[in-house]
Amino acid sequence: MKYCSHCGAQVVLKVPPGETLLRFVCEACQTVHYQNPKIVAGCIPEWEDKILLCRRAIEPRLGLWTFPAGFMELDETTEQAAARETLEEAKVEVEIKSLFAVFSLLRVNQVYVIFRGKMRSQDFGVGHESSDVQLFSPTKIPWESLAFPVIHETLERYVEDAGRGRFDVHFGVVQPMKR
Amino acid sequence: MKYCSHCGAQVVLKVPPGETLLRFVCEACQTVHYQNPKIVAGCIPEWEDKILLCRRAIEPRLGLWTFPAGFMELDETTEQAAARETLEEAKVEVEIKSLFAVFSLLRVNQVYVIFRGKMRSQDFGVGHESSDVQLFSPTKIPWESLAFPVIHETLERYVEDAGRGRFDVHFGVVQPMKR
Repeated sequence: MKYCSHCGAQVVLKVPPGETLLRFVCEACQTVHYQNPKIVAGCIPEWEDKILLCRRAIEPRLGLWTFPAGFMELDETTEQAAARETLEEAKVEVEIKSLFAVFSLLRVNQVYVIFRGKMRSQDFGVGHESSDVQLFSPTKIPWESLAFPVIHETLERYVEDAGRGRFDVHFGVVQPMKR
Repeated sequence: MKYCSHCGAQVVLKVPPGETLLRFVCEACQTVHYQNPKIVAGCIPEWEDKILLCRRAIEPRLGLWTFPAGFMELDETTEQAAARETLEEAKVEVEIKSLFAVFSLLRVNQVYVIFRGKMRSQDFGVGHESSDVQLFSPTKIPWESLAFPVIHETLERYVEDAGRGRFDVHFGVVQPMKR
């Protein structure tokens, strides 16, 4: 951030009066420009004992597998965002059944809010951000080809919970990929 | 938003190529300025069978009661944000025990992520955004003097769960205050 989105003057990085953290501040119009983490809403779409995964047709991690997830928009709930992403990426409607996980990703300042969703029909499709969409049983998940650590962590916990027949709600921090 | 925070040119409201929603776009440097909901991290601090509430010393809703909650910052997890707010507003350290609720507030584009926290000691204090801090048993919660609908909704569910001795993880939308 270099310029004030309110008045167009240059901003400076400083600690505003009464605060303790560095912020971008406009000294022309006094606006403090706060920056905050973004929510990625995700859904694990379920059909009988299988789950629906999408192969990414876009960067980053093109060609790798994920469950439907994306940035939450203004004027929607997290559940609506998760269902919308599922419709966009896998062309299927889901009924959001339960919250499954809230994971913080420090390096990228994202918080994943992930739900389990019951597919309203078995007819799914390949959305424009996907190159393939398939149902996987928990024993057939493509562990070596998952797009992000948070996808891996989420599906590991999902498979464990599914195996014992009881789903918890998970939270915590997910570490970035080793490079 | 009137000006591009990247280059200082005026932005326009338009649907970028390949997208479906109106965004603020800079036609000088082509930056798309996405706007997203913000996370408010909250904590219900517990001591034996009581919970800690703070009386707000700041607007909005000055003088009314809330549990510690505030905007999540960059470079922290939701749990760290909830614990930080508790330390700032009620001067007590908590151990985050479990996720309690994820509530979407459409009108203000906020998502509350609320945890239960075990107070590490009975010594709490009055933080600079509070005018009073007190432990309340579930039967003594000041229902008529709570700051926001989301506080009311959360504490209602909390008291219900506490009463039957089993805590669920809640999610959904919280409607704004009737005016």
